[in-house]
Amino acid sequence: MSHTVSGSETVKYVLGERDIPTHWINLMPDLPGEAPPPLHPGTQQPAGPDDLSPIFPMSLILQEVSADPEVEIPEPVRDAYRLWRPTPLYRARRLERALDTPAHIYYKYEGVSPAGSHKPNTAVAQAYENAAAGVRKLSTETGAGQWGSALAFACQLFGLQCEVWMVGSSYDQKPYRRSMMQAWGATVHRSPSDVTAAGRAQAEHPTGSLGIAISEAVEVAAQNADTNYSLGSVLNHVLLHQTIMGQEAIAQLEMAGEYPDTVIACVGGGSNFGGLTIPFLRRTLREGAATRFIAAEPAACPTLTKGVYAYDFGDTVGLTPLMPMYTLGHGFVPPPVHAGGLRYHGDSPLVCGLVRAGLVEPRAYRQNDTFAAAVQFARTESIIPAPEPAHAIRATIDEALAAREAGEERVLLFGLCGHGNFDLSAYDAYLAGGLEDPEFSQADLDAALAALPEAPSL
Amino acid sequence: MSHTVSGSETVKYVLGERDIPTHWINLMPDLPGEAPPPLHPGTQQPAGPDDLSPIFPMSLILQEVSADPEVEIPEPVRDAYRLWRPTPLYRARRLERALDTPAHIYYKYEGVSPAGSHKPNTAVAQAYENAAAGVRKLSTETGAGQWGSALAFACQLFGLQCEVWMVGSSYDQKPYRRSMMQAWGATVHRSPSDVTAAGRAQAEHPTGSLGIAISEAVEVAAQNADTNYSLGSVLNHVLLHQTIMGQEAIAQLEMAGEYPDTVIACVGGGSNFGGLTIPFLRRTLREGAATRFIAAEPAACPTLTKGVYAYDFGDTVGLTPLMPMYTLGHGFVPPPVHAGGLRYHGDSPLVCGLVRAGLVEPRAYRQNDTFAAAVQFARTESIIPAPEPAHAIRATIDEALAAREAGEERVLLFGLCGHGNFDLSAYDAYLAGGLEDPEFSQADLDAALAALPEAPSL
Repeated sequence: MSHTVSGSETVKYVLGERDIPTHWINLMPDLPGEAPPPLHPGTQQPAGPDDLSPIFPMSLILQEVSADPEVEIPEPVRDAYRLWRPTPLYRARRLERALDTPAHIYYKYEGVSPAGSHKPNTAVAQAYENAAAGVRKLSTETGAGQWGSALAFACQLFGLQCEVWMVGSSYDQKPYRRSMMQAWGATVHRSPSDVTAAGRAQAEHPTGSLGIAISEAVEVAAQNADTNYSLGSVLNHVLLHQTIMGQEAIAQLEMAGEYPDTVIACVGGGSNFGGLTIPFLRRTLREGAATRFIAAEPAACPTLTKGVYAYDFGDTVGLTPLMPMYTLGHGFVPPPVHAGGLRYHGDSPLVCGLVRAGLVEPRAYRQNDTFAAAVQFARTESIIPAPEPAHAIRATIDEALAAREAGEERVLLFGLCGHGNFDLSAYDAYLAGGLEDPEFSQADLDAALAALPEAPSL
Repeated sequence: MSHTVSGSETVKYVLGERDIPTHWINLMPDLPGEAPPPLHPGTQQPAGPDDLSPIFPMSLILQEVSADPEVEIPEPVRDAYRLWRPTPLYRARRLERALDTPAHIYYKYEGVSPAGSHKPNTAVAQAYENAAAGVRKLSTETGAGQWGSALAFACQLFGLQCEVWMVGSSYDQKPYRRSMMQAWGATVHRSPSDVTAAGRAQAEHPTGSLGIAISEAVEVAAQNADTNYSLGSVLNHVLLHQTIMGQEAIAQLEMAGEYPDTVIACVGGGSNFGGLTIPFLRRTLREGAATRFIAAEPAACPTLTKGVYAYDFGDTVGLTPLMPMYTLGHGFVPPPVHAGGLRYHGDSPLVCGLVRAGLVEPRAYRQNDTFAAAVQFARTESIIPAPEPAHAIRATIDEALAAREAGEERVLLFGLCGHGNFDLSAYDAYLAGGLEDPEFSQADLDAALAALPEAPSL
């Protein structure tokens, strides 16, 4: 109990409101080579702004294709950020001690937002731009509800209506995120619903899927002039908005007098990973800073570690543009893991390009190993993590243990992108020894990869 | 949508870590007159430190009876506070606009703690003092789990074991707080349990009660030399620890250049109310600051508005000292409301004395009225409140509307002592129009008051 008499266990770096970044960072102009463009699903020609304008406002489309290294953050968005930003950066001294590691472990904590994750960083930006463009309603899909609740929160800030299609099985099993969306005034449909043609056509799949929910939300946005669609990850402008995390982290690590040799984040669609790493990646690309970047994903949905780099649809049913990315095939259905935010067959084209260029190392982790790391973290650092960042914690602990073996005083930074308040049933199962540890089916993966759309090779 | 182009909606006052108070404030020496002492339940003589030493460490007992106006906060406790403190103070501009009120509304937000409420403010102090005294385990009871989870969190910080008796009906219906305690390493028993004599004797009441759970936790602490008991409200030393809230709020309001004419908080056992108001009350008592203090309680458990001022037991079964307080009778069982933290038959003797002296105005609110206020708050200020502080929000909105009618530019401060992440099923019922609005039974109250223990009159 030596730590009962110690008075310097807690090390937290707090910025002032004036330190909230004034610009988002766009990595595109710093990337080596030309990024392959998304393709129109019908013509297979490069998809341009006009292809996106029925469902996105032009300001976000211009951010999506921007060649500017920085994009100014509108003042009403910075004002909304002030509700919970800057977020704290902690040094994990108690965890370091438990691991007996010479490594310095830092984590950027995004769970202080009203919705409890990093998702509001882009939700408020998207809601603002749509409101400024005169749009009256945003439609979106959500799985377990992290993204839907972030958008519901953002829409009420800017006076927009919000309509969410929630995957049926989650709607039934996880009612609390739905209640959260409704408390913020959103309308939530169980998907497949009977209010869209896409939903009615899928009535024989009552548990729904993210692909069906996307189709429903896009259909409503495409058919109603006053309604746009909003996406919580994957696209360039979403990663752009998230770069406030990495910029704040750099400023906070400067307060600590350190720079990380390794930056670690979980990756599902890529917005959390991109948001934390892009500001550090630009330093590596511009100044040659020697930093490793580790992308942690579930072994049950191993997009970056077992996928192929190819053009594929972003959704399951094949409505979106073809995206150049690592993919398990748009028909691949990963087994159920609690990290619902990481169950995506593809990944952000920007992050995939970084993996392909060797700048980012992907790693896959089994569910029980990530929960073991999460519980060790909760019992030392006090925050109970969401299952998604538990993958980053697993990778960080492994790196810290390797540092101990090597006797190296390393500097590790990871992204703690959300709290686990809505995931305690998974902790319950883990602590009772009953958490499943599913593997994907190789036969299903082979079949999904065999069904990739015909498209130019990459 | 005028607020989509405004850039100054969010007004948050943030202190630095060095501004965490160095002392807790003890109001006892400033109170007019002599406070009636607690009485030993057997002898009816004033209960002294020796009566409490089997279950509390002497350092906390000395705080309980201290006549010092301030008590220094041990550095390891301040260090633990740094995990989430100082907490933010917000000005509720969006809510003010929605109410069209000239009042300035401020709120102190305690939901940023790892357990999501103000309870860790005293939990870490109690865990530290017990660890410093060589105690190895703390026992406690919990209803819905707010207090149990705060103590579980605090115990793992200071290397203590934590054993919690959770009321059986909550254990079954609200598993997530239980999982939270277990994630932090606590042992959680469903009460009545078979590991105590008190529990075995109540096996015919399988849903349990807070009174039974207290008896179990106290029994284990009294019978084991290495185990102490910990209480989350009511007692003087618990209110003392909570005064960091009010001290920070004073400093933050100074940043805003304001001083409140009215301070509002919900009251169950009294620790949240006392913690926010005591620093302001001392200014009123010492300097004559003209401030109103409003204590908001549920109409279903109207201790301060319908109770009698008398000696009564703190627990249901009659094991504790007799406390001088407003009470509904220790046998009174309030109807089920979602604000579980406010369902207590008595109240802190210190707060009751303030009510009796006319320094504090109690007000009672119906459940549906408090949820209406909570939803209005969530849809303007973005934080979804726990059902307990929803009572303070109801009182604040009523005051702000009165200010509008009177055309008065008033300054209101209320305590937002916790978030509602674990209470979304109640929001679900409210939004669906199906939230019960129970009233207490006058016959039950009459019977409970008739069964008050014989004791000196007050």
